[in-house]
Amino acid sequence: MHRPVRKVAICAPATPLKREYAERVAALAVAEFPDLDLHFHEQCFVEEGHFAGPDELRLAALLECANDPAIDAVWFAKGGYGSNRITQGFHDHANEAARAKTYVGYSDCGTLLGALYRNSIGHAVHAPMPCDLAREGGEDAIRRVLSWFGGDDGGLEPGLGDTPAVAFNLYTLAMMLGTPFMPDLSGHEVLIEEVAEHEYAIDRLFFHVTAQLEGVAGIRLGEVTAIPENDRPFGASVVEIAQDWCSRSGIPYLGRAEIGHTATNRIVPFGLEARGTRA
Amino acid sequence: MHRPVRKVAICAPATPLKREYAERVAALAVAEFPDLDLHFHEQCFVEEGHFAGPDELRLAALLECANDPAIDAVWFAKGGYGSNRITQGFHDHANEAARAKTYVGYSDCGTLLGALYRNSIGHAVHAPMPCDLAREGGEDAIRRVLSWFGGDDGGLEPGLGDTPAVAFNLYTLAMMLGTPFMPDLSGHEVLIEEVAEHEYAIDRLFFHVTAQLEGVAGIRLGEVTAIPENDRPFGASVVEIAQDWCSRSGIPYLGRAEIGHTATNRIVPFGLEARGTRA
Repeated sequence: MHRPVRKVAICAPATPLKREYAERVAALAVAEFPDLDLHFHEQCFVEEGHFAGPDELRLAALLECANDPAIDAVWFAKGGYGSNRITQGFHDHANEAARAKTYVGYSDCGTLLGALYRNSIGHAVHAPMPCDLAREGGEDAIRRVLSWFGGDDGGLEPGLGDTPAVAFNLYTLAMMLGTPFMPDLSGHEVLIEEVAEHEYAIDRLFFHVTAQLEGVAGIRLGEVTAIPENDRPFGASVVEIAQDWCSRSGIPYLGRAEIGHTATNRIVPFGLEARGTRA
Repeated sequence: MHRPVRKVAICAPATPLKREYAERVAALAVAEFPDLDLHFHEQCFVEEGHFAGPDELRLAALLECANDPAIDAVWFAKGGYGSNRITQGFHDHANEAARAKTYVGYSDCGTLLGALYRNSIGHAVHAPMPCDLAREGGEDAIRRVLSWFGGDDGGLEPGLGDTPAVAFNLYTLAMMLGTPFMPDLSGHEVLIEEVAEHEYAIDRLFFHVTAQLEGVAGIRLGEVTAIPENDRPFGASVVEIAQDWCSRSGIPYLGRAEIGHTATNRIVPFGLEARGTRA
């Protein structure tokens, strides 16, 4: 097992969390994981336009959580869009305490995870977020993370082996490529999931991504959910799309992955260092 | 004025054109531009899944038009998505005749235009396409292109000056970045338009694009149309989004451009060579 996490601070680098979900996650933790100490930052609940508060407020809350030496892990409350807007600011102001922490989330927050991994700051971990409580079976997604905090590796993505891995939302990865936040993924298994994109957009994103992932160990395709209906069928499944672009670009297609915008979304610590040994 | 174009071949590298629009464009050309000779390739009307035929068929039609020395210009019938899937094949098989031609279109076909410009193959020109006949005022958009084929520069984007320029759909440009098709845009004015994307997606695409356009002369923002309604207001206008990311990345924001998914979409020959002198 990996080193357990005790004190977890939750903030929202992108969009706001409903207070109800925070309360239910906190109650679940108190009832079932008494060793854990969860602190939801008030910024989680701020709403301003699309975001959980303006960039300055979201950045300040993230830094408050990350730079506090009493906190073991920062858990992102929700994705949605916006963490890329404060990623540079985070790196400009992260202190030594921030470098010793674990950062947990997925979807849009992949930009923060990618930049952390690129700069070897703390441990970046793809995993469910408090907002996932809203899903059917969401409590199990939350329990998976809280158990992992406590040192239980049972929630790890089952295909993880001796190869370093990362996990990203396809669109988030596509937008991070070519920016100062993109980590070097040479030799990595890249797990990719997507939600609410048309098949033609998924095809276009795979074109973009596979053109720039030379040297990876391969791609595994996670869940691709909530594909909107188009005015006509695309003509290829999402697996065929992934296989096609892997084939065109010479990247090994390694099969499916248990990640995605679903309650079954599993945990993928980036690299090998954060993974620890299975119990 | 630039050198007039006489023989124009039309094919569909992405999605199919309705035969009705081809017939009406052809009739308009016969009635008002008797010196022009338009040839609609039958491939324009093929439908297979999302595309105007499979990759092989779209590529074969494009090469047939481009490699024919009797043809002066290739006009793309419609965008939609798919030209990126045959761009490499086009470059692998384009002959000397293809290098002497003018290529006209926009939207998804920007990937072809970008790759042509990168490799100095013929002249790449952003302009309305036959599918634009479907718009209110669409006949004027068609006339603008047919007049330009005839040597009339009156339809050029009015802000074009002594700086080389290109024009792209935002999403198409974002997906082309980092691929072997992306041209060097140092010193260029980059005109950018978008259609049917949420403001948060536009913000995300500008994050991606402006991180990789170092050295351009600046960005001008074209029309941004058909923005879907989101569950909450974004909090910034598209002009503010463009200005914000230009400011963050040190790229000059140069104001608006008369391009877009509209009937008023103007003509932007890529670079200076294809533009000629105004009449």
